[in-house]
Amino acid sequence: MGAQQVSGGGGACAACKHQRRKCEKGCELANYFPSEKMKEFKAVHKVFGVSNLAKLIKANSTEQARHRAAATLTWEAEWREKEPVEGCYKEVQMLRCEIQRLREILARCTCGRSDGYRVVDYSNGYWGLGGGMVILKNNEQQVLVNGITPWNQMM
Amino acid sequence: MGAQQVSGGGGACAACKHQRRKCEKGCELANYFPSEKMKEFKAVHKVFGVSNLAKLIKANSTEQARHRAAATLTWEAEWREKEPVEGCYKEVQMLRCEIQRLREILARCTCGRSDGYRVVDYSNGYWGLGGGMVILKNNEQQVLVNGITPWNQMM
Repeated sequence: MGAQQVSGGGGACAACKHQRRKCEKGCELANYFPSEKMKEFKAVHKVFGVSNLAKLIKANSTEQARHRAAATLTWEAEWREKEPVEGCYKEVQMLRCEIQRLREILARCTCGRSDGYRVVDYSNGYWGLGGGMVILKNNEQQVLVNGITPWNQMM
Repeated sequence: MGAQQVSGGGGACAACKHQRRKCEKGCELANYFPSEKMKEFKAVHKVFGVSNLAKLIKANSTEQARHRAAATLTWEAEWREKEPVEGCYKEVQMLRCEIQRLREILARCTCGRSDGYRVVDYSNGYWGLGGGMVILKNNEQQVLVNGITPWNQMM
């Protein structure tokens, strides 16, 4: 992602265009919402408002981090537009659902094996750090999940 | 989640307390941020601002949907406090990482099976709707994932 200042010249950035104002040199949103990102800007504007948006982006010190923050805030806002109740938590729910299904298949896969592997499910947080699924063969142990909210603490 | 109006009496809600104003009967945030939710209110206030927050909650018509919207907005805001760059997209990344690992184990599990099962990975969206992982035995087919952003379109 480039960090080039795009406004100040002929074309106003999406933020200034949406607010019908002149896009001055040094406009603080122009780098993240150039004129072609009008749809994205409308979404973040609706969810966060301009001043909160600028504050949340500027809270990060590097230009790369600010661009990434603008991208993740846009992702949140676009989800909230589609799903006014769940927002981007909907994606989390779908991913958790997929994990649950993969775990169920893995459990099925451990039946009928002939090579000594077995899959053990510690998904209720038995091992402290959120638990996870472990595949064991003889003395081999591989912890698969760390740092994720334990399943028994889901919203 | 109850829909009881909690303010108007003695105790101000978290929103009014934080803004040092009297919590009037009919205060529109009192139901979602009662006085004991001060920490949660501070987070949403910082990320969305009071007027956006109230607007995003009221965009939903039932009381149940409004409570749920307040809860998911709080979840987003708390992530943004912890992770100013990624926000709650961090949780999505961790869940995707777990899915990737589970897929890799599943792939290992299909080697050495003696019961005719095989696992096929359509995770690049081959089947249209986001693809997924499929376990097949003879004519049996079970599509496991639908509706999730295809892996090749990840941010």
